Amino acid sequence: MSIQRVAVIGLGLLGGSIGLALAKHCPDITTTGYDADPATREAARARQLVGTVHDSAAGSVAQADLVILCVPVGAMAFAAEAIRDVLPSGAIISDVGSSKQSVVESLQAALPGHTVIPAHPVAGTEQSGPEAGFAELFEHRWCILTPPEGTPDDKIADLSAMWKRLGSKIEIMDAAHHDLVLAVTSHIPHLIAYTIVGTASDLEDVTRSEVIKYSAGGFRDFTRIAASDPTMWRDVFLHNKDAVLEMLGRFTEDLTALQRAIRRGDGDALHELFTRTRAIRRSIIEQGQDDARPDFGRADH
Amino acid sequence: MSIQRVAVIGLGLLGGSIGLALAKHCPDITTTGYDADPATREAARARQLVGTVHDSAAGSVAQADLVILCVPVGAMAFAAEAIRDVLPSGAIISDVGSSKQSVVESLQAALPGHTVIPAHPVAGTEQSGPEAGFAELFEHRWCILTPPEGTPDDKIADLSAMWKRLGSKIEIMDAAHHDLVLAVTSHIPHLIAYTIVGTASDLEDVTRSEVIKYSAGGFRDFTRIAASDPTMWRDVFLHNKDAVLEMLGRFTEDLTALQRAIRRGDGDALHELFTRTRAIRRSIIEQGQDDARPDFGRADH
Repeated sequence: MSIQRVAVIGLGLLGGSIGLALAKHCPDITTTGYDADPATREAARARQLVGTVHDSAAGSVAQADLVILCVPVGAMAFAAEAIRDVLPSGAIISDVGSSKQSVVESLQAALPGHTVIPAHPVAGTEQSGPEAGFAELFEHRWCILTPPEGTPDDKIADLSAMWKRLGSKIEIMDAAHHDLVLAVTSHIPHLIAYTIVGTASDLEDVTRSEVIKYSAGGFRDFTRIAASDPTMWRDVFLHNKDAVLEMLGRFTEDLTALQRAIRRGDGDALHELFTRTRAIRRSIIEQGQDDARPDFGRADH
Repeated sequence: MSIQRVAVIGLGLLGGSIGLALAKHCPDITTTGYDADPATREAARARQLVGTVHDSAAGSVAQADLVILCVPVGAMAFAAEAIRDVLPSGAIISDVGSSKQSVVESLQAALPGHTVIPAHPVAGTEQSGPEAGFAELFEHRWCILTPPEGTPDDKIADLSAMWKRLGSKIEIMDAAHHDLVLAVTSHIPHLIAYTIVGTASDLEDVTRSEVIKYSAGGFRDFTRIAASDPTMWRDVFLHNKDAVLEMLGRFTEDLTALQRAIRRGDGDALHELFTRTRAIRRSIIEQGQDDARPDFGRADH
């Protein structure tokens, strides 16, 4: 049986985009939703992010055959508890969290006997909240599923099929490997963006006004990433601590080596790295994972 | 006397954009140009980046009242030597380099008795070469002039007026202060982007294919910056060594503090920083220094 009724818990950027994408690509699927914030529920009703916005988590999931938790990773266990008593026994429980080991553990502990299939659509913007979502967010993006051992194949197939209808490409991997891969492609980039923006804000000999005026030299790109949702990202770092610290260690080793090259005036070492890094950009564009236009097309605007 | 004849030495992204912007905004100004690479000269002729492309640097400057050196910072002294014997005595010598102390020193040493006014238009893309330039590159962007003490006011006014006609806003500052400001708004962001892209390329437990597939989580933005011209950036780090090392020291201190917060599970410290960094993004957008659309508008494409 394929998925007919989807409940979305948490109606921010991701939850709202799922609701809108389902309405666009899967009009046969009924959607319900809930958000803990009354103002978000009101905005979700106004934008029709899902078919019916309920005033309780339990109310929204009572008929669901798929529940997608779109809350910060640290709130997963609370969200699971809120729906435990009314969750239909055959329903799939999934999520969109950016770390997966802690999610699968907390959902399995909170919802014993249910089918838990964590998911991570690798997509987003720096915006958050119920006004931020849009139906196209997942198109041409990868959605990683990390089903625990013993998950029925037909349930994995049902969830995969739904994400494919939203435009995503599916990859299935182990939760621990997911957390390591995303530490380098997402978590560390966010951490260093937050750091450099903080560093620039705290200088005494360079004013904040100067930082803003001359941000087109590269800094402004980091401010976009560092404008991402603070609660979501706090939780990512707390819940993917080991992989983040491991990858951060490698990054700082490499940065220290470059620092030494600069101090010693070793231009060849710098040039070698700066040449090597161009190849990855080309591959990302060839595989449709970024805009090929110079400067992301900002200059065309 | 305002500027009538501009010679552009180096016809890559910046030099080509200056030529095209002069043609668009200042059709009264005659432009000549030269590039050390014959293939670039040929491409520059095909794209009409400047009015006349000469086959020698000396030939291109013989009639100029402004010469703009658009070569890597490390090549400034060579470019200056190549034009020394034919440079009209009243001509202004300027450039577009990303560091300014070393440039003003090498140009003054190579061209004694000439008026040297270093300039840095804070604008660019990750593309380079004669195909990359476009006339709008400098619109709404700041152009920083760092005239040495004793520079005649009328010459500064002439150069400022020309950059304003290309759409730039002008700021005048001391070369040393420029180098510190740009270290944080441009040089360190490039250095950490090059580093993380290098780190991700060298992992054994995460494949390059995975890094590319899941790059939309934040990493892809860094690959754009890390695709910038290797020679230009090697020279920036070698020539702005002191300011870069100073700012890099502050960045790594801040990163170490965040690393400790993650290790200790100090969510409040993370949340506080992640909230604070949003304000700078808002100011950058309010001041027209970045695209207000989510994700730089990539999703609209």
